[in-house]
Amino acid sequence: MTSPVSGFRFSAVSAGLRKDGRIDVALAAASAPATCAGVFTRNLVRAAPVDVAAERVRSGRARAVLANSGTANACTGQAGFEAVLASTEAIARALGVPSSSVLPASTGVIGKLLEARRVAARAADLVATLSPDGFSDFARAIGTTDRWEKIAEARAGAARVLGIAKGAGMIHPDLGVIPPGPPHATMLAFLFTDAAVDRAGLERALVHAVDTSFNACSVDGDTSTNDTVIALASGAAGVCDADELARATSEVCDALARSMIADGEGATHAVEVRVTGLATDAEARQVARTIATSMLVKTALFAQDPNWGRLLAAAGRAGVRFDPARARIAVGGVAIVRDGVALGAEAEAEAARHMIEPSYVVDLVLGSGPGSFTYLTSDLGHGYVDVNAGYRS
Amino acid sequence: MTSPVSGFRFSAVSAGLRKDGRIDVALAAASAPATCAGVFTRNLVRAAPVDVAAERVRSGRARAVLANSGTANACTGQAGFEAVLASTEAIARALGVPSSSVLPASTGVIGKLLEARRVAARAADLVATLSPDGFSDFARAIGTTDRWEKIAEARAGAARVLGIAKGAGMIHPDLGVIPPGPPHATMLAFLFTDAAVDRAGLERALVHAVDTSFNACSVDGDTSTNDTVIALASGAAGVCDADELARATSEVCDALARSMIADGEGATHAVEVRVTGLATDAEARQVARTIATSMLVKTALFAQDPNWGRLLAAAGRAGVRFDPARARIAVGGVAIVRDGVALGAEAEAEAARHMIEPSYVVDLVLGSGPGSFTYLTSDLGHGYVDVNAGYRS
Repeated sequence: MTSPVSGFRFSAVSAGLRKDGRIDVALAAASAPATCAGVFTRNLVRAAPVDVAAERVRSGRARAVLANSGTANACTGQAGFEAVLASTEAIARALGVPSSSVLPASTGVIGKLLEARRVAARAADLVATLSPDGFSDFARAIGTTDRWEKIAEARAGAARVLGIAKGAGMIHPDLGVIPPGPPHATMLAFLFTDAAVDRAGLERALVHAVDTSFNACSVDGDTSTNDTVIALASGAAGVCDADELARATSEVCDALARSMIADGEGATHAVEVRVTGLATDAEARQVARTIATSMLVKTALFAQDPNWGRLLAAAGRAGVRFDPARARIAVGGVAIVRDGVALGAEAEAEAARHMIEPSYVVDLVLGSGPGSFTYLTSDLGHGYVDVNAGYRS
Repeated sequence: MTSPVSGFRFSAVSAGLRKDGRIDVALAAASAPATCAGVFTRNLVRAAPVDVAAERVRSGRARAVLANSGTANACTGQAGFEAVLASTEAIARALGVPSSSVLPASTGVIGKLLEARRVAARAADLVATLSPDGFSDFARAIGTTDRWEKIAEARAGAARVLGIAKGAGMIHPDLGVIPPGPPHATMLAFLFTDAAVDRAGLERALVHAVDTSFNACSVDGDTSTNDTVIALASGAAGVCDADELARATSEVCDALARSMIADGEGATHAVEVRVTGLATDAEARQVARTIATSMLVKTALFAQDPNWGRLLAAAGRAGVRFDPARARIAVGGVAIVRDGVALGAEAEAEAARHMIEPSYVVDLVLGSGPGSFTYLTSDLGHGYVDVNAGYRS
C-alpha cells in the first residue's frame, strides 16, 4: 500500500483533451520550492513541453508538475509552444507561484495541439482538489494505452521515494540531461521524495537510475518525442545518505520500467535479456539492445519458442566482437546452447515451459570478459498490431 | 518471358531436406570455368556454407552453385562444415570438376545440420537434369516462406544478366566482400551473365548494385547468418562495356530486392522511404533505414494510416542532425507536412487513399542538402506475426 510523501499533493481532472472523457490532466504540487532534476528524450524531434521543462528544470527548483494525456503537443510549431506557456501560466496563477516553476509534460498523438484554454478552465479545480494521496488519480490521468497504473515506492533511510509512470508504446527511452543533445518517445515518469538533497545529488541519483532502467528497456524500439523523467525533492524528511537515495531511486525506476514493459502494447511477456562475458558493459548493452529490439526474437517470445538461432543471429549483427563458437544460451535458467551448438530438443522443450510465465530471463554468455548488461523487452504478437494499427483512428 | 543465358544450365530436385517433400536442392552449372564474385552477410554468426563460399569465391573462378532450402546449416559446428565439404564434393564428382569450384549456399532453420548424404544421393540426378531453362525450378527450390519466385533479367549490350533470388524473412541484408568483416540474414541471390568480364570488373558491378538494392531493403531488420549474393560470368557473349554491365546488374538486383520486399513475410505493401535534403547520402541512408525498420511506422503502413508523427519521430532518433521545423513529408506524392507542421485532415485523407496501393513512395525532405537515399520496406501486420510465431513448429 503506497502512502503519501511529505511535501507533495496531487490531483487530476478531465479537461476534455481526450475524446473518451477520461481524466486527462494531472497536477503535482510541492508545498514549498522543491529541488528538481530532469532527463528528457534525446530525439531530435522534441515536443514543446519537453523544451520548456528542460529549460525550467535547469534552475534546480520547481513548485509543480503539470502533465496531460490526449495530445503529445509535438510538431505543433509556435502555437504548441504558446499553449505550454499559457497552460502552465494558468496553473501557476491558481497556485500562486511563478510560471517558471511549473514543469510541463505531455503524451498522446503527435501533431495535435494542446488546447490550453481547456486546461486553464480546470486550473482552479486542479488546485482545489490537491491531496497527499491523489497520486493514484495522477497516474490514471497520464495513462494512454496503459492497462494498469504504474506506481512504485522505496525507502531511503527516513526518507521515501514515490514514482509514477506511464507507458505503453513508443517505448525505447533514450533519456539524457538537456543540454547536451536532443530528446524523443512517450514514457513519462515523475519521482517525488521527501529527502533533503541538493540539485547535483538529485540529478546524479536520477541519471544513474534512469540509465539502467528506462534507458534499458524497449517495447518497440521507437524513442518518443516526449519522454520525460522529473524528480522533485521536498526535503521534509531531512538529509539522506547519497548512496541510500541513489539505491532507492534506482529501485523505484526499475520497478516502474518493469511495469511499463509488462504493460507494453499488446505484450504478454516481459523478458530480461541478460548478456555477459563481453569485454565491456557498453558492448554487452549493445548486444542486449539488439536482441531486445529484434522483431524475429520478439515474435519468438510471443510464440513461446526458445528460438536460439534468432537470439544468436541478432547478437551477431550487433557490431560487437565475440566468438559464436563459445556462446552459451539459457532460457528461464535452462541451458539450450553450449559452445555455439544446440543441446537438443529435450532442453528446448524444457526451456519452452518457462516461456509460458509472464516474465523470465534469457541469458547469453558470449565469452569470459567482465562486461554485462540486462535489457528488458516485451513480446510482439497480434495485440501489438491491433493496438498500433488502430491507434489514431 | 525470361530466356536462358549462354553458358549456364540449371536443375532442382527434392532431396528430402524439407519435411513437406518440396524440391529443396538446386544446382547451377557453367559449361566452362566462369568468372565469379560474391558478397556475404557481415553478421558475426556466419553459416558454414557462407564461410566455404566466401573462401572459394576468392579464386575468381567457379563452375557451379549448389543451393539448398530446408536448413541454414548455421551454428552447426564442425559437423556443419564437413557437410558442406561432402555435399559440394559429391556434386563436383558428378560434374567432373574440382570441388573448390562448387559454391554452396543454404537457407532455412538455424541450427539444423545439412544432411550431406541426402544431397549426395541426388547428385547424379541434379547433373543429369541440367537444362538452360531450369532456372525457374532453381528459384522454386531455394524459396522458403516465399509466396512467389523471384527472377529478373536485363540486357547489357549483346550480353544478358539473369538473377534468381529468394526472401522472405530475416531480411535486412548487410552484405560485403569477405574479407574484411563477417556476415548474417537469409536472402540468397544468384546472378548469371554471358558477358566477358574479369573478376575485378564483376565484383565492382556486384558491390555497387548490392549496395543500393539488397543492402537498402528490410523486412524485419534482422540480418541473417546466411545472406549470399554470387555472380557468375560465362563470357559467351563477349566483352561488354563496364558501365553497361554495371547498369544491368543494378537493374536486376533492384528488381529482385523489390520482389523480396513485396513478398516480405506477411507483407501487404512495399514502400519506398525516400529521404532527401541532408548533408550526405550516408546521413540520408541512416535516416531512411531508421524509418524503414521502425515497428510503429511499419504498423502504420499496415493500417494505411499516413501517421507522419511516427515518421518524423523515427527520423529524429536516427542520430542525424536536421531541423524538424523545416521538414516536409509526402505520402504517395501528397504533401501532408510542411515546415514540420501538419497540413491537415484533408491532405491526410488524400494520402491515405494512396496507401491502399501495393507499393508507393514516402518522401521526407529534411533540408536543402544534396544527400539522399531510398530504402525499401514492408508493412507489419498480423500476417508477419502468424508467419514468425509459427515458423519452427
